[in-house]
Amino acid sequence: MRLHWRCCRSAMPLAAVLLSVFLQTGAVQFDAHFEAAQVKNNVSWAKEDSQINGKLKALEAKFKKKPNIIYILADDIGFGELGWQGGGKHRGTPGPGLDDMAYQGMRFWSSYAEPSCTPSRVAIMTGRHPVRTGLTTVLWPGQPDGLSPAEVTLPEVLSAAGYSTAMWGKWHLGEEPAHAPENQGFEYAYYGLFNGAPDMWPDSDTVAPNSNPAFLDFPGVEAYKEDTGIDLSVSAYVGRKGATREPIEGLAGKPGPKRQDAFEEESITQILKYVKEKANDAKPFFIYWATYAQQLCGVSSHMNEKHVDRLNSQASMMAAHSSYVTRLLQTLKDEKIAENTLVVWISDNGPMYAFYPNSGYSWLKGGKGSVWEGGVRTPAMAWWPGMIQANQDPVDLLQITDLYTTAARLGGALDHIPSDRVTDGVDQAALLLLGEGHGRRTKIFHYSGDHLGALRRGDVKAHFLGGASGGLPKMEAYNVRRDPGEKYGEFYPYLWLVTPISNDVKAHKRMMQKFPNRGSEGPASCAK
Amino acid sequence: MRLHWRCCRSAMPLAAVLLSVFLQTGAVQFDAHFEAAQVKNNVSWAKEDSQINGKLKALEAKFKKKPNIIYILADDIGFGELGWQGGGKHRGTPGPGLDDMAYQGMRFWSSYAEPSCTPSRVAIMTGRHPVRTGLTTVLWPGQPDGLSPAEVTLPEVLSAAGYSTAMWGKWHLGEEPAHAPENQGFEYAYYGLFNGAPDMWPDSDTVAPNSNPAFLDFPGVEAYKEDTGIDLSVSAYVGRKGATREPIEGLAGKPGPKRQDAFEEESITQILKYVKEKANDAKPFFIYWATYAQQLCGVSSHMNEKHVDRLNSQASMMAAHSSYVTRLLQTLKDEKIAENTLVVWISDNGPMYAFYPNSGYSWLKGGKGSVWEGGVRTPAMAWWPGMIQANQDPVDLLQITDLYTTAARLGGALDHIPSDRVTDGVDQAALLLLGEGHGRRTKIFHYSGDHLGALRRGDVKAHFLGGASGGLPKMEAYNVRRDPGEKYGEFYPYLWLVTPISNDVKAHKRMMQKFPNRGSEGPASCAK
Repeated sequence: MRLHWRCCRSAMPLAAVLLSVFLQTGAVQFDAHFEAAQVKNNVSWAKEDSQINGKLKALEAKFKKKPNIIYILADDIGFGELGWQGGGKHRGTPGPGLDDMAYQGMRFWSSYAEPSCTPSRVAIMTGRHPVRTGLTTVLWPGQPDGLSPAEVTLPEVLSAAGYSTAMWGKWHLGEEPAHAPENQGFEYAYYGLFNGAPDMWPDSDTVAPNSNPAFLDFPGVEAYKEDTGIDLSVSAYVGRKGATREPIEGLAGKPGPKRQDAFEEESITQILKYVKEKANDAKPFFIYWATYAQQLCGVSSHMNEKHVDRLNSQASMMAAHSSYVTRLLQTLKDEKIAENTLVVWISDNGPMYAFYPNSGYSWLKGGKGSVWEGGVRTPAMAWWPGMIQANQDPVDLLQITDLYTTAARLGGALDHIPSDRVTDGVDQAALLLLGEGHGRRTKIFHYSGDHLGALRRGDVKAHFLGGASGGLPKMEAYNVRRDPGEKYGEFYPYLWLVTPISNDVKAHKRMMQKFPNRGSEGPASCAK
Repeated sequence: MRLHWRCCRSAMPLAAVLLSVFLQTGAVQFDAHFEAAQVKNNVSWAKEDSQINGKLKALEAKFKKKPNIIYILADDIGFGELGWQGGGKHRGTPGPGLDDMAYQGMRFWSSYAEPSCTPSRVAIMTGRHPVRTGLTTVLWPGQPDGLSPAEVTLPEVLSAAGYSTAMWGKWHLGEEPAHAPENQGFEYAYYGLFNGAPDMWPDSDTVAPNSNPAFLDFPGVEAYKEDTGIDLSVSAYVGRKGATREPIEGLAGKPGPKRQDAFEEESITQILKYVKEKANDAKPFFIYWATYAQQLCGVSSHMNEKHVDRLNSQASMMAAHSSYVTRLLQTLKDEKIAENTLVVWISDNGPMYAFYPNSGYSWLKGGKGSVWEGGVRTPAMAWWPGMIQANQDPVDLLQITDLYTTAARLGGALDHIPSDRVTDGVDQAALLLLGEGHGRRTKIFHYSGDHLGALRRGDVKAHFLGGASGGLPKMEAYNVRRDPGEKYGEFYPYLWLVTPISNDVKAHKRMMQKFPNRGSEGPASCAK
C-alpha cells in the first residue's frame, strides 16, 4: 500500500494534489490507509463532496442551521438480534419501532464497533481506536482511570461549531469528575457511570429466584461497601457544564432492574422535552443517548412488562427501548425537524453470553470481548427522512469511529478536529447521502485491548494470533463476506496476503510512532 | 398428548365433534399431534376456514377456476443466504429478484425441509416424511430405488381435481421408468435424474484449474461407464404421460456446468411458454420447478456470467436464477393471472460445505445431511398478489410436507389425498391467507434417514442422540427460538420436557404401527 501510495503521488497532477489538500480541510490527520485512499480517490471523492455540499447547503438554507445529530448507542446487542436481521420477534424479543427505523432509513449488515463497552464509547466520543487514548479496557466500579481531558470529544468538536450538546445513559468513561461528561463537552448529562449501573450487581433481595447465577457470591451493596469502600448505590448523576454533578434524585436506593427501568424512562422523557425545546432554537443540537438497553443482569423483574416472552427478560427491555425510539422519531416528525435531524443507532459490541438466555445473541462466532465477528460486527441503522433514502442496505463497511468524523463533517466542524493526533474515523457522509458504493472505508483495525487482534482488508480479515511459528506469521485469514461465521480459517491459501497485510500494519505502526498513543491515566489499565 | 386428546374428545359437545369430522374433509389421516390439534382448535379453525373459503370462492368466481400453483424447489440454499436474510449481495451472491419476491409476499424465517435432497423431494411430492415411503436416503446414479408408484403424489392429487401438471428440473426420486415424473402424475416433465445432473461429476476437461478438489480421483464419464456400467452422460429427459421418455436433444455430450446452465435456461423458457399457453385455459395448472440453483460442482465456468464475484461461482447461478424468477413473476402479471397464482419458493436443505467457497452457507449449526438447524431450516417465500398480503414475515412454523396438503386444499383436492396412510403435511392456507399467528403447526419430527433425529415442539427442539445412558435418555434440548444457532444444548434444565416429548413420540410411533412404513423398493437403501 505504501509503495502504491508513493507511485500515485509522484504521478499526480498538481490540481489533484491541491484537491487532495483541500479534501483534508480541518487538517484532520487520518491513519495511513485512509490518507492513501484519499490520494487514490481524490477526483471521484471531490465530485461526491461537491454533490454532498450542495445537498447540505440547500438543507441549511431551509432550516437556517446545521443539521441536528442524534446518536443512539445500544448495549450488547449482537448481529442478528434486530427484527430485520431475523431476530426481534423471531427470537422472542420484538422491537417493531427499531425495524420501522431501519426500513425508513439505511440498515447496515457490515457495521463494526470495538469489542467491548468502554472501548466503543471511547471510539464514538473521540473518533479514535481506544489504543491511542490510553483507555483500552472496560472500566470497573471503583477504578480511577478515565477518558483523558486531553482527548477532544465529539461534543467538544460540535460545541465549537455552535451546537447544543446533551447526553443520556451509560457513560462508562471514568468516575472522576475530570472524566465526567459535563467536563468532556456535554452541556447537560443524565448518566450512569459504568456497566449495568444502576442495574448491575443488585442486592440479593432484588434478584428473582429464577435469575441467572451471574452474581454468584456477590455480598450485596452494603457489605461490598464495607469490605471495599466502593459505593455502588450512588452511580448515576445529573451533570451540568461548569457545575458540580449531583446524584440523581428519585433514583436513590438499591441498584436493581426497577431503578434501571426508571432511569431509561426518565431519559426518554427528558430527551423528548429537550428535542421540543431545541426544535426552533437558533443552534442545532447533538444528542448522545447511550441507552442501557439491553444490558441485563438476568433478573426477572423486567418480566412484568408487556410484550414479554416467558423465556427471556430481554424482551421487556427491547420492547421498551423500541417504543422509546418510536416516540423519539415521531417527536422529530411532529416538530417538523425530521428532515434536519440525522439519527444513527448502533450497538457497542456483541452479546454477553454469560447472561444467556436473557442475554443478547449473535449468529456469528464469538461475543463481547473478542475480535471475532460476533464481538465486533453489530447492527446499525441511519435515519434522516429526505436526506437518506428509505430502505437501503448497503454492503459498505462502517466503523464506530466513523460516526465522530461524519458528525463533524455534517456539522461543519472538521476544523475543530485536532491535527496533532491520528483520527481513525472516516467521513461517511457520502455513504449516507449518496448510498451504496460510496462508503470510504476498506480497512478496519480490530484492537483487543492493546493488542492488534485482526485487520479487515476488503472482504478478507486476518486474525493475528501472536508472534510467529517456525518462521511463519501466526495468522489466520477468513473471507468474512463469503464466510461471516468465520468457519474456514486458513493460512496457506492466503500466502498472497502476507506482504500486503504486513505493509498495512507497518504503515499503521509508523503513524503510531509519529503520533504516539497516550499513556494510561490511572494504575489499573495496561499502560503501553 | 394422547391422554389430552382423549379428555378433549370425551368432553366435546356433539357439534364440535361433527365440526371436527367436517374439518377432516377428504378423510386425510394426519399424524397424532395434528389430529389432536384439530380437536383442540376446532372452533377457531372452523371460523378461519369459513373466512378462507369466502376468499377462495370470490377468487374462483372471478377467474372461473381454482388457483394456479407454482412450487419452486431450490437446491442447497441455506438459512441466511438470500438477501433479505443478510446473504445475497452481502455474501457476494446478489439475487434481487428473489428479494423482490420476498418483500412482495410472505417470507419465512422458521421454515423447515428434510435434511437432504431426495428426502425433501419425497416430502413435497407425497406430503409425508420420507421414512413412511421407503425412500429415506439420497439416491446415487445407478441405484434402482425410487419413489413407489403406490405413493400418491401432489400432481396426482391435483390432476384428479382437474389441474394441468408439469415439472422442470431435478427429479432425484429414481431412475427407473416406474419412478419417473411422467409416471408419477406429471403430464409433462423436463428433468434431470439425480444430484447435480447434468452438472456433477464432470469430465476432467470441464473442471477448471481453480476448482475445488471435490471430484478427487473421478476417472471421467467414459472410464466410469467402462468400469461400472453406469452412464452419466444420459441423465436428462423429456417425459410425457403415457409415452416413453426421451433423452433431451441438444443437451447431449459430456456433463458439465455449461450443460447445466443450458438446462436451466431452457427450463425457464419452457415454463414461461407454458404459463402463457395455460393462462386462459379452462383448467388451472400446477408447476413444480425443481431448479438446479445453486447445486455446484465448484467449476469456474459459471464465472463467465455477469454479476459474478471473483471469489465464488455460486454468484452466477444465483444471479441467473434470480432473473428467471423475476421473469416468471412478471409473466404472471403480464398475463393477468398473478392474483390467481400462488408461487412458493423453498430450499430443499442446508448448504453442502464440501464445495466451500462455491457452496451455499448458513448462519446456523450443521449443514446438508444433518438435523441441526443448518441442515433443515431453510429460507422460503410465498407470493400471491391480492391474496397474500405483501411484506409479511410470520414467526409461524412451516414444514415442506405442508406444501402438499396446502396445495390440495387450495385446489379443492383434499378428497384425493388417500386416507389409508399418514399424511404429515399440514394445511397452511390459514397462515398464507390470514397471516401471522394462523399457522397450524406446532411440532416437527426431524428424521435423519430412518432415525428420528429430533423433535421440535413449540420453541424447544430435542435431539435424540440414540439410546439411553445410565438410565437417562440421551437427549439434548435447545430453545431454537432464543438459540437458533444451537449453542446451548442442555438436558437437566429440560427434565420437564422428557415426559411430554416421550408421549409425543409414543403417539407418533403408535400411528406408525397403525399405518406401517412402506418398505424399500430396491436393495440399496436401508429397509425397515
